[in-house]
Amino acid sequence: MPITTPADIDAAATRIKPHVRVTPVLNGAPNVQFKLEFLQIGGSFKARGAFNTLLSTAIPAAGVAAASGGNHGLAVAIAAQSRGVAATIFVPEIAAPAKIAGIRAAGADIRVGGARYNDALAACTEHVMRTGALAVHAFDSPATIAGQGTLAREWESQWGEPLDTVLVAVGGGGLIAGMAAWWSGRVKVVGVEPEGSRALHAALAAGQPVDVDVNSVAADSLGARRAGDRVFEIARRYETEIVLVSDAAITGAQGDLWRRFRIASEPGGAAAHAALLSGAYKPAAHERVGILLCGANVDLEKLAAAV
Amino acid sequence: MPITTPADIDAAATRIKPHVRVTPVLNGAPNVQFKLEFLQIGGSFKARGAFNTLLSTAIPAAGVAAASGGNHGLAVAIAAQSRGVAATIFVPEIAAPAKIAGIRAAGADIRVGGARYNDALAACTEHVMRTGALAVHAFDSPATIAGQGTLAREWESQWGEPLDTVLVAVGGGGLIAGMAAWWSGRVKVVGVEPEGSRALHAALAAGQPVDVDVNSVAADSLGARRAGDRVFEIARRYETEIVLVSDAAITGAQGDLWRRFRIASEPGGAAAHAALLSGAYKPAAHERVGILLCGANVDLEKLAAAV
Repeated sequence: MPITTPADIDAAATRIKPHVRVTPVLNGAPNVQFKLEFLQIGGSFKARGAFNTLLSTAIPAAGVAAASGGNHGLAVAIAAQSRGVAATIFVPEIAAPAKIAGIRAAGADIRVGGARYNDALAACTEHVMRTGALAVHAFDSPATIAGQGTLAREWESQWGEPLDTVLVAVGGGGLIAGMAAWWSGRVKVVGVEPEGSRALHAALAAGQPVDVDVNSVAADSLGARRAGDRVFEIARRYETEIVLVSDAAITGAQGDLWRRFRIASEPGGAAAHAALLSGAYKPAAHERVGILLCGANVDLEKLAAAV
Repeated sequence: MPITTPADIDAAATRIKPHVRVTPVLNGAPNVQFKLEFLQIGGSFKARGAFNTLLSTAIPAAGVAAASGGNHGLAVAIAAQSRGVAATIFVPEIAAPAKIAGIRAAGADIRVGGARYNDALAACTEHVMRTGALAVHAFDSPATIAGQGTLAREWESQWGEPLDTVLVAVGGGGLIAGMAAWWSGRVKVVGVEPEGSRALHAALAAGQPVDVDVNSVAADSLGARRAGDRVFEIARRYETEIVLVSDAAITGAQGDLWRRFRIASEPGGAAAHAALLSGAYKPAAHERVGILLCGANVDLEKLAAAV
């Protein structure tokens, strides 16, 4: 299948520019730069793909629908509200209350059910078949991938001295696919998956997307059961490396981000930091590493307990 | 008395550069830009003045001492640790546990006592007289003011289109004095004080620093009983305007920053945002306003309850 190109991402960037925030970078240590994408509208990078989809597609009378661990659903709800169309959002029971509250506040019709992301996806698919709503896929559509790719394009314009390597958390893989497509091999893009939720790792090992079990503290943002086909093609093309992190490392990274930077992040949002902090990814001497902090939709009581 | 000049601030910036972070800006809305100084080392702008003092002054054998609502003490503890000298930090009982924990983690000798900042100041002064330690004043010394002024210098280098007005929370006033000194009338600097802790407002009204009662949700960062003499001279010279905000407006601003930006801030850190949000400061059409988010040393359980 044709894969996302830098030109697709340029077009997406122009399209979404009036609707999303330029999120800043912070040099956290020598040769370590954070991209503070948790400051994005909706608290995660997902607004990029959601706006790109809703601004490049005709919306049927039934509106739009999305299945999500929560962040993508929130972004679709916000983009739908901005465009004045109806949104129906399906999330599993593990979705963080902060995410559910946000989706409600954005005026979407929210349906909570099932244990995992893929249960929500099944309910959403049924809804789309029945109503004719436009399904906005959380990761495996060209518009979503190109939208997420704008994050890499933006980062490159901000980073000062170029980064050698970028660490990115992976759920279904839309974000890493977009970023890898933007850099097209010019920057090493390393995916970070929880040990208990490794859809892209398993796909690359098997030579095709395969189902995995999902059991991780980050399941409500990185808990896809299977990597996307388009995602897989891009990851294979650019020889994306995957490192795995434990739940303990993720929680430890949340604590470190709070204690040293006063950054509140959700487990999935801290996974990339966990890779560096735990040694799961070991940079070479003088290697300049970027860490994408991709989401902050955490319940503060829960974060307080974790740090 | 001679007041702080832009040249003093240039010198401070060169001195502290290897030790502090460049904190980023975020365009939060049309004509509204946030400066994310809560990402600074120690969770507030105070590291600037603390490093400037410790790097420009001979340190006696008894080390350094500081009185603080918490943030300045934490910054002095970190700077002292970095220079390898002893620090004794005096904080009142209202200091946030997050601040006390940070001061301990930085290896300082911490003394908790008294109800308010000025009780800690009295205990610190007694300690300094007895031991010969170097007192690092939280706001009213030239080195502290010049250090805090580097924040304005840095912001100006980042802001893109120039800001017309900058909103800054005021405790004892070291920060606003440094910023006003940097801009020297080129930018309108507006001080924001809690209704229940208005030391600089009272000083400007009385024509000299006077004691005020302190009773505010932000007392542990903005709770100085009296504005500094040097601070007062600078504020008078540049005709600094002060607006007052209620405790409810401050708590509301904390909630807004969390819900819309996933930024955790302490009450004092959200006061400047409260001024715009509550209408205490009303910008003209097309006026470009900067909001300084100056501190994030909040206990997450408490923030969870507030939002």
